[in-house]
Amino acid sequence: MPSPISFLSDFGHDDEFVGVVHGVIARIAPDVKVIDITHGIRRGDIHGGALALTRAVQFMPDGVFLAVVDPGVGTERRAIAARSPVGFFVGPDNGVLAPAVAMVGGADLIVSLEDERFRLPTPGATFHGRDVFGPAAAVLASNQADITDLGPALPPDSIQPLLVPLAEPAGNGGIKATALWVDTFGNIQFNIAAEDLERLELSTGDDVLMSHNVIEHRVRWGVSYGSVEEGEAVFHVDSHGQIALAVRGESAAETFDMGAGDSVVIGRPDGGNTIEIRAVG
Amino acid sequence: MPSPISFLSDFGHDDEFVGVVHGVIARIAPDVKVIDITHGIRRGDIHGGALALTRAVQFMPDGVFLAVVDPGVGTERRAIAARSPVGFFVGPDNGVLAPAVAMVGGADLIVSLEDERFRLPTPGATFHGRDVFGPAAAVLASNQADITDLGPALPPDSIQPLLVPLAEPAGNGGIKATALWVDTFGNIQFNIAAEDLERLELSTGDDVLMSHNVIEHRVRWGVSYGSVEEGEAVFHVDSHGQIALAVRGESAAETFDMGAGDSVVIGRPDGGNTIEIRAVG
Amino acid sequence: MPSPISFLSDFGHDDEFVGVVHGVIARIAPDVKVIDITHGIRRGDIHGGALALTRAVQFMPDGVFLAVVDPGVGTERRAIAARSPVGFFVGPDNGVLAPAVAMVGGADLIVSLEDERFRLPTPGATFHGRDVFGPAAAVLASNQADITDLGPALPPDSIQPLLVPLAEPAGNGGIKATALWVDTFGNIQFNIAAEDLERLELSTGDDVLMSHNVIEHRVRWGVSYGSVEEGEAVFHVDSHGQIALAVRGESAAETFDMGAGDSVVIGRPDGGNTIEIRAVG
Repeated sequence: MPSPISFLSDFGHDDEFVGVVHGVIARIAPDVKVIDITHGIRRGDIHGGALALTRAVQFMPDGVFLAVVDPGVGTERRAIAARSPVGFFVGPDNGVLAPAVAMVGGADLIVSLEDERFRLPTPGATFHGRDVFGPAAAVLASNQADITDLGPALPPDSIQPLLVPLAEPAGNGGIKATALWVDTFGNIQFNIAAEDLERLELSTGDDVLMSHNVIEHRVRWGVSYGSVEEGEAVFHVDSHGQIALAVRGESAAETFDMGAGDSVVIGRPDGGNTIEIRAVG
Repeated sequence: MPSPISFLSDFGHDDEFVGVVHGVIARIAPDVKVIDITHGIRRGDIHGGALALTRAVQFMPDGVFLAVVDPGVGTERRAIAARSPVGFFVGPDNGVLAPAVAMVGGADLIVSLEDERFRLPTPGATFHGRDVFGPAAAVLASNQADITDLGPALPPDSIQPLLVPLAEPAGNGGIKATALWVDTFGNIQFNIAAEDLERLELSTGDDVLMSHNVIEHRVRWGVSYGSVEEGEAVFHVDSHGQIALAVRGESAAETFDMGAGDSVVIGRPDGGNTIEIRAVG
Repeated sequence: MPSPISFLSDFGHDDEFVGVVHGVIARIAPDVKVIDITHGIRRGDIHGGALALTRAVQFMPDGVFLAVVDPGVGTERRAIAARSPVGFFVGPDNGVLAPAVAMVGGADLIVSLEDERFRLPTPGATFHGRDVFGPAAAVLASNQADITDLGPALPPDSIQPLLVPLAEPAGNGGIKATALWVDTFGNIQFNIAAEDLERLELSTGDDVLMSHNVIEHRVRWGVSYGSVEEGEAVFHVDSHGQIALAVRGESAAETFDMGAGDSVVIGRPDGGNTIEIRAVG
């Protein structure tokens, strides 16, 4: 019984890169189903790719996770496969795999994809999705080889980590947070889990103060877009259990001129409490 | 024997939304084939989504039609499944489903997707494609549940209708029409069926007068792009039996500065007949 | 045993065109797997489509190759299917198929897709992907008909060729070359095969002179991006065995203001050798 491959990359849809990797997989393992998570990761954005994979992984079927955001292809970065409780992760060892692997319980075995039997003998050294990662994913998904056949084992804790900024306390009970992700609808996800907000003791309908770029905004706390009127902003728990900022029917990213990586301070506008104002670069 | 799911949304390809819905379906029903109709509907454009689904539905295999253009997610709009002669339609009850359901013969049973057994128990209330519609489509496509298991029945005629503008007679035998769709090639489809044009008694090579934004254009009537030279405009019957305006080798939308929703008046430039000129907002 | 269909077009992802062709195929041949090579070919760019198909074909599984870049739909251009050593090529006979067919060994049989049994009886004459090419690909992939059933045979050498510019010697041992392809990462592929460069006798670390738009650039020759520092340019053998220009971590197309079709002269900056400078239109 072959396993499905869930495939994420920054290849975009202008070129044939995604199709060629599908083709390589189909030639090696015709019965394997490939599910495209997304190929719209910003070119070379390891961070964005790692976060998208981490958000998606729990909703994909167990099997092989193929993630190719690989600005260092053709350099010394390692090409790896990692065995985890939900299956195999295959990709460059540049941080794109680490948070998703950690989220599903960690890797107990990692190999360096060096065995020439499982690489395409092609010219050039710049399309490892086609020549190295796709073939490895195909043989793992179709059980044509054991992971240990693909190359020498590496220490299972040697996977390249990715630094994700943590939210931290700000003055007066507020929270310094960073925008992790702006989605295609302009919703902004922050690095604050729903439970991190407990000490703010918020109820639906409360106001939250958000300072960003030395401007203070008063935003409603709600369950979802339905808690506010069209065009109004709302802080809410998003579909991943994270705190997010939305504007009903519009783009919060445009309304607040905010992008991934931007910092804010949020807190309650309670009497006497002054929210720390900070300029953000 | 599972049925295929034909899937349309406004999720775009920048994020992992489409992939995650595929993943959810694959976890519930691994053998179900999912065909992506398109995910390029303009964000929140219920009208555009409904028309695309209506144009596509007759060419897709019988099965489940999953259509998620859902600007009201997290508000009071209903989540429904409707049974029709060609299979099940699943999506928000905001008008996106109605024209396609009507086109295939109407629904004889509609349910509100409320049964928690067939919803993902996830945080947040803003990704019903993943949590509500995807799972419903998967269980219907794989016959794991009857549609009546998914939630309480609603009156079968209670589906939210969508108002599509109708063409109407203009002065002097002309027709007031509205652009329904501008495709990626810049071709413009109007709300005039081929048979509606009969009273204009057009033959290939005739000229048609089109007024738009108080400008009159004389356009050739033809069979297709081949009826005119490169760079020339042609009115013709398009691949859906609707009247469309094209410019051979170029974009009619750019040439005539026209977009979906714009109105025109078209008619024959016969002696004595004056085409009504109207400003369009 | 059905064969897979590898599908390339310029349909983009904004409309339902790709999905409808998938639907038509699924209705005719439910068990056939369709692999999307790409649908991001620039609208009507026969050249770009032909080159992408040629680059991809050797990596796709044997079966049917469906390529629809068809600015002449609705004109007199022929619709064909061609039998080759790796399977069938289906599409408009406008040059989009020819280089890929030649690369896999040529066609021994070509037919004109005229038999009405294998065309959809739909209105209009402008969506042959749906009405002519998709159905032909489906019946060939599922062995429901012999290629000779689809229409009258044409001379096997009558396929419309595509003129691809050839590199040629420039003065002083240099090479006049044309940019064939700029990929989504901004890498530029030239019409010079690795072996064509032999007479320049290059070694890693050597410099190459490239003149473009009367500007001379000195560029490192290397194995891949890893041969240079971030932001530095490198000429190298790309993943198709062609000479390509890249800038590590950036877009070479932006750095050098170069697009597909642009010409350059490259050569060694050896003492006494003067590279021919030419203005490029």
